[in-house]
Amino acid sequence: MNTIPLWRRIVAEGIGTGLLVTVVIGSGIAASRLSPNDVGLQLLENAFATALGLAVLILMLGPVSGAHFNPVVSGVDWWLGRKTGNGLTSRELGAYVPAQVSGAVLGAVLANLMYGEAAVSWSTTERGAGHQWLGEVVATAGLIVLIFALASSGRAAMAPAAVGAYIGSAYWFTSSTSFANPAVTIGRAFSDTFAGIAPASLPGFVLAQVAGAAVGVALLAVLYPAAGQAADDVVKRATGVSK
Amino acid sequence: MNTIPLWRRIVAEGIGTGLLVTVVIGSGIAASRLSPNDVGLQLLENAFATALGLAVLILMLGPVSGAHFNPVVSGVDWWLGRKTGNGLTSRELGAYVPAQVSGAVLGAVLANLMYGEAAVSWSTTERGAGHQWLGEVVATAGLIVLIFALASSGRAAMAPAAVGAYIGSAYWFTSSTSFANPAVTIGRAFSDTFAGIAPASLPGFVLAQVAGAAVGVALLAVLYPAAGQAADDVVKRATGVSK
Amino acid sequence: MNTIPLWRRIVAEGIGTGLLVTVVIGSGIAASRLSPNDVGLQLLENAFATALGLAVLILMLGPVSGAHFNPVVSGVDWWLGRKTGNGLTSRELGAYVPAQVSGAVLGAVLANLMYGEAAVSWSTTERGAGHQWLGEVVATAGLIVLIFALASSGRAAMAPAAVGAYIGSAYWFTSSTSFANPAVTIGRAFSDTFAGIAPASLPGFVLAQVAGAAVGVALLAVLYPAAGQAADDVVKRATGVSK
Amino acid sequence: MNTIPLWRRIVAEGIGTGLLVTVVIGSGIAASRLSPNDVGLQLLENAFATALGLAVLILMLGPVSGAHFNPVVSGVDWWLGRKTGNGLTSRELGAYVPAQVSGAVLGAVLANLMYGEAAVSWSTTERGAGHQWLGEVVATAGLIVLIFALASSGRAAMAPAAVGAYIGSAYWFTSSTSFANPAVTIGRAFSDTFAGIAPASLPGFVLAQVAGAAVGVALLAVLYPAAGQAADDVVKRATGVSK
Repeated sequence: MNTIPLWRRIVAEGIGTGLLVTVVIGSGIAASRLSPNDVGLQLLENAFATALGLAVLILMLGPVSGAHFNPVVSGVDWWLGRKTGNGLTSRELGAYVPAQVSGAVLGAVLANLMYGEAAVSWSTTERGAGHQWLGEVVATAGLIVLIFALASSGRAAMAPAAVGAYIGSAYWFTSSTSFANPAVTIGRAFSDTFAGIAPASLPGFVLAQVAGAAVGVALLAVLYPAAGQAADDVVKRATGVSK
Repeated sequence: MNTIPLWRRIVAEGIGTGLLVTVVIGSGIAASRLSPNDVGLQLLENAFATALGLAVLILMLGPVSGAHFNPVVSGVDWWLGRKTGNGLTSRELGAYVPAQVSGAVLGAVLANLMYGEAAVSWSTTERGAGHQWLGEVVATAGLIVLIFALASSGRAAMAPAAVGAYIGSAYWFTSSTSFANPAVTIGRAFSDTFAGIAPASLPGFVLAQVAGAAVGVALLAVLYPAAGQAADDVVKRATGVSK
Repeated sequence: MNTIPLWRRIVAEGIGTGLLVTVVIGSGIAASRLSPNDVGLQLLENAFATALGLAVLILMLGPVSGAHFNPVVSGVDWWLGRKTGNGLTSRELGAYVPAQVSGAVLGAVLANLMYGEAAVSWSTTERGAGHQWLGEVVATAGLIVLIFALASSGRAAMAPAAVGAYIGSAYWFTSSTSFANPAVTIGRAFSDTFAGIAPASLPGFVLAQVAGAAVGVALLAVLYPAAGQAADDVVKRATGVSK
Repeated sequence: MNTIPLWRRIVAEGIGTGLLVTVVIGSGIAASRLSPNDVGLQLLENAFATALGLAVLILMLGPVSGAHFNPVVSGVDWWLGRKTGNGLTSRELGAYVPAQVSGAVLGAVLANLMYGEAAVSWSTTERGAGHQWLGEVVATAGLIVLIFALASSGRAAMAPAAVGAYIGSAYWFTSSTSFANPAVTIGRAFSDTFAGIAPASLPGFVLAQVAGAAVGVALLAVLYPAAGQAADDVVKRATGVSK
């Protein structure tokens, strides 16, 4: 059981998800301004910054809240833990998700302000092709399997580096550039810049992420049938602390 | 002895090899589309994604199957282990290799579909110059020495990061861009994109990889004469778990 | 208590801060000379070199002085430790900061000389927009939270890689390219090259960094209320040595 | 005392130094061919491959020979160890250095052949400006301090990643692109490609490296006065094995 008060964990989820969005959007703005002639180079710069920044944020806040920063991660933890009495309770889940979404929006505003943009500008980047949805399913399923595989095999301490590396790679190998996170997806709608997503494209991406999480849960049932017993360990304290 | 049922390990080998091919081909498609003017930048993007993605896949599936994802790794494990009663049995080897090859083909199809390409398009990229075969010999020999050196010195937990780093480097230092894996080579024939290889070039590359594996085994006999005793540890559980 | 004589620790702080500035300025000169057509690529090269170089310098000198290399890190350590009898004493703080600043200036001279520039050339790069100050506040706050979060959770051994990764990411996600260090900021005024900052822009940046440190301390009070008890561990021996 | 027979260690030093040169030259050839329009991008590709490849080679061969791959590292180990009865003996030093140099030359030939070049082509790249020699002094001094600092503080297991990261950074922050290794410098004279050095420039570079090693030893006397007692641990078994 996690003995850190819920309010403190909620603050950590809000700050962490917010700074993750700041990293994604901020580095995207810098990349598109500084490398205007090659979109691939922009994505490489964006992926470099995100892989390192995400790893650092998980290291920084993991001991407080588990550093989910992602409603589908929290949701799967609740789902897997239900069966074993581990994981987030439904009340905790109901507190984590709004904190993640609110933090994500504020993180987008912070990135916009840091770069002298309007505090909010709705993204006009449409991301709605069917093959991009398939990309999101793959990206999210892989993320879920990774996180719970590490927890289930006693290697939660490797989660910060592994999750950062995964997203840095998935920016490239999925056609959707791997959002894989409903809260971050919502936040990215608030910035009409490199990493943005048009509000009209949100429902498709979020649905694809939920479907990907379901695929991930199904794969875990095959690969790590005991993953549920590690839900508590994985999600509440995926901290980078050696056990 | 590995107590995980063989069917589960086979599934892990198929998924892992498949996703490795998805990473290689998918990031190659993204790189060539987004950075059309510099092939070196495309290869850097491809290498960045592959190094991180391969490390993550080994972390993710190592505890289940050993995360070989490569018939020559499985083959060498069987070969070295024969002498000491360790390593894969011939029956296990006979199950691993088809799973790896099937997974690789499906991984290519997944990458093609994620990027809106036809499910299968035979590659037209010929890779058959003699100096490229030399590149494959070097690439595969180095990979074999690395994996069994780590196992033999009790450092299998470093295999995920080390193997990812090795391939990321070998993309650059070998003239063949380091396929070093017969299953992945076959999978890459199914996509006429950046990372593809024409079917007619397959036999040369696979032969060079087998020759490289033999060179690797010879080098191990000199450098790590006791490597065979670690075959069980290396190949079945190259998991990233500290011992 | 740190039993290494203060004079030796001061030498380490001077050398480490100096070499950090050499890394930042030197790689900036190389990047702008070799990649003249894309500022983003220059920043990527600069960030790559700085992330790796900073991590190495903390590994190299952490066991001697704690490897602060940064007056706001030393200052926060003193501040947090005051309440608990941990951390730097005011006398130690008064020795660390001048060593850091002197080292930074000499590091700039070394970079200039290595690249055949005049030993000193005042930077003419103005960095004074309000949104850049916001960038410095964010960058410094994040750095402070990271360092003391790691110490407070018994993971000071991860500080070298984590701090290097953080700065490599923050080069991109903050609009100020994340100086986050008053000593390094002063040193960078002594080189009219890629990484320089005009002397007239110094006060604004340093004030923003101090404000960011205050924000970091406030966040620590919420997230890691016991951080002060780890001040001794974090700052004097953030060494990369497992405990 | 290292119980591995000297002949085996010599083979490891030869193979390791050789493959290091293969990595440096091979990735340099690929980079200059594939990214013909931006020398900075070539150096970034070269640094990416070298940082990862060097780390992997030290992991691979450290348990056999200590993975010096560098006459000045072996020389300093002998020098520091003389005073304490640790480190390489003069006989071992006399075996290590020729193996390193011979391996380096063969590694250059292998890189040339892999890329379809003549087996040997004398480099015509002159590297003889005074500020480049200063770069070599800085690069070599830093390398020596790093290696013996890690050993002296019981962190030799971090040497592979740390040395790879150091060289990757020093490619950028030193004006000489950080050869920092007399054997590798000699090997690089045998390839008239991106990473080559004209034979006439060899003496200046090697002398600067020896001077840098002396500076490194002087710095160690200040920073880690007990480094000599760790010479045995550092140089013979800088293996990446946790103690």
